[in-house]
Amino acid sequence: MNISHRKVNKVLVLTDKNGAPIANKEVHIRQTNHSFLFGCGAFDFIPHVMNGDDRTKEITESWLDIFNYGTLPFYWGNYEPEEGKPNKEVLMNTAKYLQGKNVKVKGHPLCWHTVCADWLMKYDNETILKKQLERIEREVVGFKGVIDMWDVINEVVIMPIFDKYDNAITRICKEKGRVGLIREVFEKAHECNPEATLLLNDFNTSVGYEILIDGCLNAGVPISAIGIQSHQHQGYWGKEKLEEVLDRFSSFGLPIHFTENTLISGEIMPAHIVDLNDWQVDEWPSTPEGEERQAREIEEMYRILFSHPLVEAITTWDFKDGAWLNAPSGFLRKDLSKKPSYEMLKKLVKNEWWTDTTVKTDENGRIDFSGFMGEYKLTAGDMCADATLADDQEMVIKLG
Amino acid sequence: MNISHRKVNKVLVLTDKNGAPIANKEVHIRQTNHSFLFGCGAFDFIPHVMNGDDRTKEITESWLDIFNYGTLPFYWGNYEPEEGKPNKEVLMNTAKYLQGKNVKVKGHPLCWHTVCADWLMKYDNETILKKQLERIEREVVGFKGVIDMWDVINEVVIMPIFDKYDNAITRICKEKGRVGLIREVFEKAHECNPEATLLLNDFNTSVGYEILIDGCLNAGVPISAIGIQSHQHQGYWGKEKLEEVLDRFSSFGLPIHFTENTLISGEIMPAHIVDLNDWQVDEWPSTPEGEERQAREIEEMYRILFSHPLVEAITTWDFKDGAWLNAPSGFLRKDLSKKPSYEMLKKLVKNEWWTDTTVKTDENGRIDFSGFMGEYKLTAGDMCADATLADDQEMVIKLG
Repeated sequence: MNISHRKVNKVLVLTDKNGAPIANKEVHIRQTNHSFLFGCGAFDFIPHVMNGDDRTKEITESWLDIFNYGTLPFYWGNYEPEEGKPNKEVLMNTAKYLQGKNVKVKGHPLCWHTVCADWLMKYDNETILKKQLERIEREVVGFKGVIDMWDVINEVVIMPIFDKYDNAITRICKEKGRVGLIREVFEKAHECNPEATLLLNDFNTSVGYEILIDGCLNAGVPISAIGIQSHQHQGYWGKEKLEEVLDRFSSFGLPIHFTENTLISGEIMPAHIVDLNDWQVDEWPSTPEGEERQAREIEEMYRILFSHPLVEAITTWDFKDGAWLNAPSGFLRKDLSKKPSYEMLKKLVKNEWWTDTTVKTDENGRIDFSGFMGEYKLTAGDMCADATLADDQEMVIKLG
Repeated sequence: MNISHRKVNKVLVLTDKNGAPIANKEVHIRQTNHSFLFGCGAFDFIPHVMNGDDRTKEITESWLDIFNYGTLPFYWGNYEPEEGKPNKEVLMNTAKYLQGKNVKVKGHPLCWHTVCADWLMKYDNETILKKQLERIEREVVGFKGVIDMWDVINEVVIMPIFDKYDNAITRICKEKGRVGLIREVFEKAHECNPEATLLLNDFNTSVGYEILIDGCLNAGVPISAIGIQSHQHQGYWGKEKLEEVLDRFSSFGLPIHFTENTLISGEIMPAHIVDLNDWQVDEWPSTPEGEERQAREIEEMYRILFSHPLVEAITTWDFKDGAWLNAPSGFLRKDLSKKPSYEMLKKLVKNEWWTDTTVKTDENGRIDFSGFMGEYKLTAGDMCADATLADDQEMVIKLG
C-alpha cells in the first residue's frame, strides 16, 4: 500500500543562531508528533483530571503513549442536566490538560437526538431550535482555542425518523428537514469559530448519507470533513467494504475522519440486532483468539485508512474494555493490561510510521530529509530546535 | 376517506348575456374535466396519430373515456437515434392531438441514464453535459405551449452507481454529483419555460430519495412536484406502505405525482428480482382471479391517493397488456377487451368523483353549488356557458 502522501521529502538547511551553516555535523531528527490524527475516546481523562489516582494515571499514560487526538463528550443531557448549569469547568480542565500534552481535542457532539437534554421538551419547536443554536454558540465560543474541532451534528440520516423515544431534536429535525437543520447548526458553529474543523458524523454509510452530504454541499453548508462511524461489534467490515465506503465518500474531495471505530476482541454480536444499544449483556469477555483477531483487524484497517489520501483521522472509540455496551472493545483489558491490539497499533504509530533518524549535514549545512509529516525535534550537539515538517519545500532551520 | 379537498362549495350567480339574473330556472351543470390529473401512458397515441386504423382508434377512444392526462416518451436514444435528427414531428403531432382532446401532456424524461443516446459516449464529460443542456433547451422551448410539464430527470438515486452498462449520463452524474447534475438540468428547464411544471422522478422511495429532495430544495433547485414511481409487478404495496410513503414525502409540502403506476392482473413477479428489467418472459397471462385482484387494488390505491391533499396526479403506466416486460399490466387485455380494473377506474373517475346535476336558481339567479373541482358546462334552456370551478369563491357566470 502506498503511503508516500504521508511523508515529506525535503531539503533542510541547518544553521546556528547566527545563521551560519552547521556543516558536516551529525544531527538527530526525531519525530515528536504526527500530522495524521491518531485518536481515541478520551473520556477516561475526565476522572483523571478531576480525581486522579494510580489507576487513572496508568490508563491515561498508556493512552498518551499512542494517541495525539482525543474525543471529549459534550452530550447535552449530561453536559447540562439542569438548564443553565453546564459542566463547563470539568470539560475545560480536561481539554486543557490534553492540550498541554500536545493532544488535539474534538468535542462530540453539539447536536444529537440521543442523550439529549430532557428539559428541552417542555418548549415549542421554535424555542428548542433557538436554545440549540445558543448552546452551540456557548460551547464553540467558550472553548475556542482549546477545542477547535467539533462533531457539529450526529446521525442525521436517522434523526427525523428516530422513534424509540420522544426527544427535542427529532422534533425540530422533522420540522426543518435534515438539510435545513444541518445548515442552521453548521452556520452557527462556523460563525462562532470560522477556523474550526466542523464535522458531520454518521454511522449510516448507505447511499442516503452520501446524498445527504451532496445536498448539504450544494446548499453551501460549511462542512470541513466527513465523519464516518465504524462500530464493528457485529464483525469486521473487511477490506472490500472498507474500500467501497472510502471510494463512495471520496467523491466529494473532502477530508474523511473515521470518528468512532470499534473492533472487539470477544464474541461477535449477532447480525439480527439492528440498534447496537439493544444488545445488553452482563458479561462480554475478551478471549485470546478474539484478541489475536482484533489485532489483525486493527492492523489491516489502519493500514488501509492510512494509505488513503483523504483520510486525516482515525479514532478508536473505547480505550479500555467494558465501556459502551460492556464490550471487549478496548486496547486495554478491564485489568488495564495491554492487548495485542495495543502493541500492534503502537508499533504502527510510533515505529513503522514514525521517523527517528541521525544524519550528517553536508558542507553547506544541508540534509536531504525524508520522514513522516509531523512535528520534529532536531538536535546537533548542544543545539536544538523544534520544527513542523509538513510539505516538500526546502526549509531553513535555526538551531539554538 | 375524506375527499372534501377535491370539491368546491360555492355560490354561483347566473345571468343572461345582458347581466340580468336567470331566476327560478332549472340549470344543468355537468362536469367536462377534472382538475385532478388522471393519467396514463399515452404511447399508443403515436401510431394512432401517425397511421391510425380501427384498432388504434378503439384503443385511444377507450383511453380518452377515462383519462385527462398523458405521458409521451422523450427517451433520448429513441427521440434522437442519430445526432442532430430528432423525431420532433411525430411527438409534436401526437402532443397536439392530445391537447385538442383536452388532455394535458407530460414529456418523459429529459435526462436519464437508460435508453440514452449511445452517440453521446464519444464525447468528453464537459461536452456531454453541454449537449444534455442543449437538448433540454431544444425540447422545452420547442414544445412550449403544447407540453408544459416534464419529468426533468429520472432515477437519480441510482444514477451514479448504475453499472449495468456504460452510458453518458452516469458518467456526468459521477462527476457532478447527484444534486449538482439535478441543479444543472432543472435550472436549464426552468430558464427555458418558467411556467412549466418540473418533476424529479424516481422508483426509489427510500430515505435516500427523501434526502435527495431535501438537499435539492435547500440548494434552491426549482422542483415543482415530486414524482414517485410505483411499478408493483412484485405485488401491491398495500395501504400501510402507501400511507407511509405519502407521509414521508409529504413533509416537503410539494405536490406529489404518482408518475408510473403498475398493478398487474397475472402472476406476481418473484421478490428476488431486483431490477424489474431482469424478468424476461415470453408469456405473462392475465387471469380471471388476477383481474379481480387488480381491480380491487386499483380501487384501494386510487381512493387513498385521491384522498391525500398533496397528490395532484396519478398515472398508470401501461394502458394495455403486453407493453413493458410483456406484463398483464393494462386496463385492456391484448385483444382490447376491458378488464374489471377499467370499469372500476371509469366508475370512480367519471361517476363517483364526477359531478352532473340539475338545480334550480332562486329569484336572484343564485345556486349553492357543490361539486368536484374541474371544468363545467352549464345549460339553462337554450343558454349555456363553460366555467372552471376550482375554489370556494362566489362566482358570476354569464350564459349566452
